[in-house]
Amino acid sequence: MKKTTKLKKLLNSQNLEFLMEAHNGLSAKIVEEAGFKGIWASGLSISASLGVRDNNEASWTQVLEVIEFMSDATSIPILLDGDTGYGNFNNARRLVKKLEQRHIAGVCIEDKLFPKTNSFIKGEAQPLADINEFCGKIKAMKDTQLDDDFCVVARVEAFIAGLGLKEALRRAEAYRQAGADAILIHSKRSDVTEIESFMKEWKGRLPVIIVPTKYYSTPTKHFRDMGVSVVIWANHNLRASIMAMQGISKQIFQDETLIHVEGNIVTVDEVFRLQNHSEFEEAEKKYLPSNNKKVTKT
Amino acid sequence: MKKTTKLKKLLNSQNLEFLMEAHNGLSAKIVEEAGFKGIWASGLSISASLGVRDNNEASWTQVLEVIEFMSDATSIPILLDGDTGYGNFNNARRLVKKLEQRHIAGVCIEDKLFPKTNSFIKGEAQPLADINEFCGKIKAMKDTQLDDDFCVVARVEAFIAGLGLKEALRRAEAYRQAGADAILIHSKRSDVTEIESFMKEWKGRLPVIIVPTKYYSTPTKHFRDMGVSVVIWANHNLRASIMAMQGISKQIFQDETLIHVEGNIVTVDEVFRLQNHSEFEEAEKKYLPSNNKKVTKT
Amino acid sequence: MKKTTKLKKLLNSQNLEFLMEAHNGLSAKIVEEAGFKGIWASGLSISASLGVRDNNEASWTQVLEVIEFMSDATSIPILLDGDTGYGNFNNARRLVKKLEQRHIAGVCIEDKLFPKTNSFIKGEAQPLADINEFCGKIKAMKDTQLDDDFCVVARVEAFIAGLGLKEALRRAEAYRQAGADAILIHSKRSDVTEIESFMKEWKGRLPVIIVPTKYYSTPTKHFRDMGVSVVIWANHNLRASIMAMQGISKQIFQDETLIHVEGNIVTVDEVFRLQNHSEFEEAEKKYLPSNNKKVTKT
Amino acid sequence: MKKTTKLKKLLNSQNLEFLMEAHNGLSAKIVEEAGFKGIWASGLSISASLGVRDNNEASWTQVLEVIEFMSDATSIPILLDGDTGYGNFNNARRLVKKLEQRHIAGVCIEDKLFPKTNSFIKGEAQPLADINEFCGKIKAMKDTQLDDDFCVVARVEAFIAGLGLKEALRRAEAYRQAGADAILIHSKRSDVTEIESFMKEWKGRLPVIIVPTKYYSTPTKHFRDMGVSVVIWANHNLRASIMAMQGISKQIFQDETLIHVEGNIVTVDEVFRLQNHSEFEEAEKKYLPSNNKKVTKT
Repeated sequence: MKKTTKLKKLLNSQNLEFLMEAHNGLSAKIVEEAGFKGIWASGLSISASLGVRDNNEASWTQVLEVIEFMSDATSIPILLDGDTGYGNFNNARRLVKKLEQRHIAGVCIEDKLFPKTNSFIKGEAQPLADINEFCGKIKAMKDTQLDDDFCVVARVEAFIAGLGLKEALRRAEAYRQAGADAILIHSKRSDVTEIESFMKEWKGRLPVIIVPTKYYSTPTKHFRDMGVSVVIWANHNLRASIMAMQGISKQIFQDETLIHVEGNIVTVDEVFRLQNHSEFEEAEKKYLPSNNKKVTKT
Repeated sequence: MKKTTKLKKLLNSQNLEFLMEAHNGLSAKIVEEAGFKGIWASGLSISASLGVRDNNEASWTQVLEVIEFMSDATSIPILLDGDTGYGNFNNARRLVKKLEQRHIAGVCIEDKLFPKTNSFIKGEAQPLADINEFCGKIKAMKDTQLDDDFCVVARVEAFIAGLGLKEALRRAEAYRQAGADAILIHSKRSDVTEIESFMKEWKGRLPVIIVPTKYYSTPTKHFRDMGVSVVIWANHNLRASIMAMQGISKQIFQDETLIHVEGNIVTVDEVFRLQNHSEFEEAEKKYLPSNNKKVTKT
Repeated sequence: MKKTTKLKKLLNSQNLEFLMEAHNGLSAKIVEEAGFKGIWASGLSISASLGVRDNNEASWTQVLEVIEFMSDATSIPILLDGDTGYGNFNNARRLVKKLEQRHIAGVCIEDKLFPKTNSFIKGEAQPLADINEFCGKIKAMKDTQLDDDFCVVARVEAFIAGLGLKEALRRAEAYRQAGADAILIHSKRSDVTEIESFMKEWKGRLPVIIVPTKYYSTPTKHFRDMGVSVVIWANHNLRASIMAMQGISKQIFQDETLIHVEGNIVTVDEVFRLQNHSEFEEAEKKYLPSNNKKVTKT
Repeated sequence: MKKTTKLKKLLNSQNLEFLMEAHNGLSAKIVEEAGFKGIWASGLSISASLGVRDNNEASWTQVLEVIEFMSDATSIPILLDGDTGYGNFNNARRLVKKLEQRHIAGVCIEDKLFPKTNSFIKGEAQPLADINEFCGKIKAMKDTQLDDDFCVVARVEAFIAGLGLKEALRRAEAYRQAGADAILIHSKRSDVTEIESFMKEWKGRLPVIIVPTKYYSTPTKHFRDMGVSVVIWANHNLRASIMAMQGISKQIFQDETLIHVEGNIVTVDEVFRLQNHSEFEEAEKKYLPSNNKKVTKT
């Protein structure tokens, strides 16, 4: 089954489904091996792992290169956190073309302005996109995709901007009519009240995706009961890896030896396994004649 | 002080110095924050994190992009694990030019053939480069660098190839005469005997770098006593991050909730701190007039 | 019809077919508009236009980016001049994967060693690849392609290396048995005698491609009579553009005015037409609401 | 002398100076060989040669790669046509950092909105940037540059937008106060009246750059008399190369032979010369032992 079809089925599944964050080929592989059916290519995580800010400091083609590695390393679908589409309708439709070539299953765009700022940054509300402009962008993306199952998810930032339920619903409905395959309704509250109010009024017009980074303590059963389609665990591989790397770096710096760390990290052979080195060895036997591997002595 | 000068001083320090592995901008920043004076941009770690094999599957310009992000995110010097120089003398000198533009302090090249295979892969010995060819490569690189302090480290794979001490010494001496700034003597034994034998005969003709990934249980005092200049902890951030991501991914997959993980990972605010978001906020106040940030209502 | 299928049909056509060189999106578009059925993405031309040498100074992913732009700008198939495959069997099969994603129809690899040197460079003969190693590379590439019609062309450099007809035939036959879709037989003689001798003995076992850059004065009828399948005009857009740019640059430098040049170059509107700007204007009407285009006065 | 210093001197020269357009490494080299003292890396030409539109369809890092090749191939300074700075103040200052690493001497930004459209496209006026926002961008760029001589040129689009002389002067003065090193005053009229009116009132507060693509018939003496500092011949290498490639492609397509074209294009040896192949040959003698170049017979 094509990756796009897999993602489309996920969005429209009768069960609550989950996407797990990844930010490079390695973490994408780990997500797949853990059993997840799909990957969230997080803008925050990708930018943070590159070492830049979540303000479109990495160019869209640099992000594209990251997710190409992710897609090549895995067989489950990837939903790209595509920020604002990296510009206007024309940049967004160009993005769709490039994503399809790299077998990325779908993209989520948010109704903010380029360059974006992360929605969890404290401070004054960020400006939202004009609704009509954003609907034109969605239409342009849907008209561009060659594969019917490629998914365009519209992320509604009305709650983040403090504009309330009515605006959230107005935008979600407009994006639905513009052709979005699903709505991602975002909230930075530590409780789930905004999401609840939205779900109640939305009444399943399109699949709804949520990102409970801030309201993480809400039991998952509650998401199911509300009728949410997909939950995104949006940045937890990144945050776990930071914890681990900060710990190991500090320890090795202080200890000046590896003696105490070897047991707490994976082996080098596990790295080779994740890189699928055994396939290379088999291929080498098949394709590389042995007289090309001799040690040269001169 | 220039990054190149910092690295040169490290190589020639009277004390035993340490380089810690990083593989992207984020891990590079973490290495610096832990207190290390320098970074080892590991070929294994970079390839693994991208999701490809340590067989030059990523192109040399893709590696270049990774280390550009790493260099931009840090102020301590980076020594690039430059494999074989990615081709012949001409590719290697082109590499030097590109590294200097990106403020990478030095590069280590190994006397194997392009495309390389990781030295810890079990199996028959990999062919080594012709000594004269490798010396020509070193000369070409040293003649190319514009900054006198840029460092070219020659990695001797004679022990890895099973060719013994005599060949290791012969090669190290040839590379020294060709202009190398330091010798990296590599061993895949779990004890330190090969390194010991080399150090005894080498007698400090040039600084020596070691990578105790396999002989990790050797006390660091022993490295000091032998006269080693620099120890590279070559892949431990990667391996710690894999352990952490495999753990968190499995746990979240099984639990279907974040409730149990929030305390075991860094906060989102810590991610923002690592991205230096506060500098952006200050800059925004300084450079972006407030009338450009209003929420648009249409 | 898929681009791969178009190229495969070209290679196996009953008529003599032609590929014209291009080296960027613009020249590719010009080749298509001139009426050609296919494009030769020349390694010499691409490297020269980038400003580097034809010695694999540009990385293979930099070449990939060039041909992605070329493929996006055109609807006729592109045959990439893939040098040696940029490494061993593993690099070559990775290349195939990347080419297929970008809808490149086929690739030609030559039996030299990485990094290659242009075959028309005067001087001592360049070393050829081991036959078995090169056959393994071809097999690996054919086993990798997902699209049955993707074409792998094997370029025989035996004449270039001064090894004569027998070696040329031996290699061509080995490459055919390894799975090549066509043979490119190369010659740097100013007469067609080497090609003639090869065609006579080859007897149409596979389609044959030639590159008459040096024996350009041979009438095309002669190529038809010999049974050649495809002729590549390998670098003539590049060479024409150099002549033109050298001329205009010198003239404008000397005249210090545009008055005398405006009639000898295409108009700015012709540039816009080649960029297909009219499609953007139509799309803008369709997707971008007019209130987002107002001039801001502050 | 540093490239930045060369450009700064050019901008502040007592004589009328000229920049000639280039769009890749090859054309940049040709510009230098023709005698020009500086290069205009045109956004229109770069996008057109890549095969995309002048609407920021190529990402800013793709443009960066093009100009890195251009800078590496030449010793004269390059002024990048940097559109709007590819986003807000933060994207623009990041651009400056990247340009300095690649030894680009300066960048010109225009007071339009991202994504931009070419100023010569017919149709309704494009929106201009808010003056304060654009001034903040200039300040951010000037505060970011490490090299004092790096040049930031502010391009005033007021005439293009139909806003008249007063607005043009108001903007130019604001940009001067924000720290711009020069003003590029743009006009799409076929006569020079707008430029004249501006020069008369501007009175040399900062060097002025003009782009007489549309008013090409104005004698250069007139630019001198008005006190213009630099004239940019903005796209003429591109337009000459298109004319040449369209001609040669059509001719070869129709003739099906090279017989009639060989005399009208540069030789293959001239291509090698432009690639500086002779330096490679000398380096090969110096750095590559001859036993590594033998023809392999198996």
